[in-house]
Amino acid sequence: MSLITVGTMAFDAIETPFGKVDRIVGGSATYVAYAASNFLQPVQQISIIGNDFPQEELDSLQARGVKIDGVEQVKDKKSFFWSGRYHTDMNTRDTLVTDLNVLADFNPIVPDSYQGSEFLMLGNLMPKLQLSVINQMKERPKLIVMDTMNFWMDIAMDDLKEVLKKVDVLLVNDGEARQLSGEYSLVKAARAILNMGPKFLIIKKGEHGALLFHENHVFFAPALPLEDVFDPTGAGDTFAGGFIGHLAKTKDISFNNMKTAIIVGSALASFCVEKFGPERLKEITKEEIDDRISQFVQLVNFDIDLV
Amino acid sequence: MSLITVGTMAFDAIETPFGKVDRIVGGSATYVAYAASNFLQPVQQISIIGNDFPQEELDSLQARGVKIDGVEQVKDKKSFFWSGRYHTDMNTRDTLVTDLNVLADFNPIVPDSYQGSEFLMLGNLMPKLQLSVINQMKERPKLIVMDTMNFWMDIAMDDLKEVLKKVDVLLVNDGEARQLSGEYSLVKAARAILNMGPKFLIIKKGEHGALLFHENHVFFAPALPLEDVFDPTGAGDTFAGGFIGHLAKTKDISFNNMKTAIIVGSALASFCVEKFGPERLKEITKEEIDDRISQFVQLVNFDIDLV
Repeated sequence: MSLITVGTMAFDAIETPFGKVDRIVGGSATYVAYAASNFLQPVQQISIIGNDFPQEELDSLQARGVKIDGVEQVKDKKSFFWSGRYHTDMNTRDTLVTDLNVLADFNPIVPDSYQGSEFLMLGNLMPKLQLSVINQMKERPKLIVMDTMNFWMDIAMDDLKEVLKKVDVLLVNDGEARQLSGEYSLVKAARAILNMGPKFLIIKKGEHGALLFHENHVFFAPALPLEDVFDPTGAGDTFAGGFIGHLAKTKDISFNNMKTAIIVGSALASFCVEKFGPERLKEITKEEIDDRISQFVQLVNFDIDLV
Repeated sequence: MSLITVGTMAFDAIETPFGKVDRIVGGSATYVAYAASNFLQPVQQISIIGNDFPQEELDSLQARGVKIDGVEQVKDKKSFFWSGRYHTDMNTRDTLVTDLNVLADFNPIVPDSYQGSEFLMLGNLMPKLQLSVINQMKERPKLIVMDTMNFWMDIAMDDLKEVLKKVDVLLVNDGEARQLSGEYSLVKAARAILNMGPKFLIIKKGEHGALLFHENHVFFAPALPLEDVFDPTGAGDTFAGGFIGHLAKTKDISFNNMKTAIIVGSALASFCVEKFGPERLKEITKEEIDDRISQFVQLVNFDIDLV
């Protein structure tokens, strides 16, 4: 039950209607690792950081069973920095600053010690880098899950389509599913995307939940209705980490178990948004996760007696 | 298991990305009646129509067990007419024309033959008229369900709040829940609205499903992911008709049965949008409804084994 996760480790500055932070640790691989490490250890991280990345954050990840052999530290550069401001609806945001810094030279290397891993989580990155990681695996993982974003559809669609042929699960949001497929209806979009390579497609709709498509099946998982969404940053990556963490722990990649994994991912994401950055994810206990999952069961459970 | 439904019977002109119709029968009470009559008969209609309302439409409703003793026909005026154009996302629309016609003088009268009904569905109407119907009931119905809209919040909020004190279930969409409560978070909005009178609150989110709030409980029902939403007109009223139809048939107004009723309403609404106006609702069979409800079970059903 070994897992590799590839993605960014970064600093974020975030402004929401509830407050702002100038510099908090973020990045897709950070959120995936904090979420997945609740379900299995080690989580084998591949990323790149600068000379400014705090040692205590690396210690904190390692204390949770996250291996950082694949995390390259560049001595004379700064870490990737992103800054954004959320609108009142929390579903839309403006990017204020993107300083690539070390990310401009990122060339992910899979350490020998990571070879043989059965689960691979490709966080949102340039498609060429995602492909490079897949090609470095001496044995194809049992399950490859991939995240991406509209930016790569705008500037690297051909590369993206190459990666799509080689992955099992694609994670996108509703707007990205529409852009990738050219279809407005999500049902039609899903059918088109499943023809591009992935056997499973997850369409994330933020506060409106997530859809899982596979062959002619579809499953819907709601987001938990929350009093306040404090900071949505990293919620999608946290969802991905909970999703693949559950699958890697149970080693069951059936459609049925993927449904459960989506509920687990949704539960983890519901914690993420309660505080700025990954702060809340650092605190949660197994009891809290189980309790949150039970709330999802209550939320959608109903009896039908067709008469 | 008797049901009174109050609302409009009208003509609509509708334009969607899939086509347009210049004059099709519509109105909230029409949709409620077509939906509810799948579950119980008679449906006791209270509405107002003009001299242009087609006899064959009245015959069609009566053939389904809809009583029209409470439908007033005004000989020298035309029926209510609404015209609208939907945007690509089908969640938003522009109203092009609103000709009140007979609706300007609507003064709903509860016929003696309707007295003693246990279920009352107040379609979206001027709050004063909704209140008048409640006050005409010699015995308070077992369950009063009320629909409303942002328009009445803009111009008749005080009257609306009076009605809210006297109903059991309020149906609104997410924007209306926010406007009524002054809260952006739907969880906070629900708490505020439940303090205004209704014991149950249903927040409809169109293609994103519906939420049911009661005390500290919340239930979420998805909308069925559809290939095409052909025409959303009447989907909310159809949902309401399926909801109260199921409750009136089963005579069970527990939270648990309301969850089932929401699934039934969602299933009916998923048919409504497949054709223009109420056309699809006129055709559906019990087998089709049961099959659609089974699709909802498949859509949200998952196994959780907390270990």
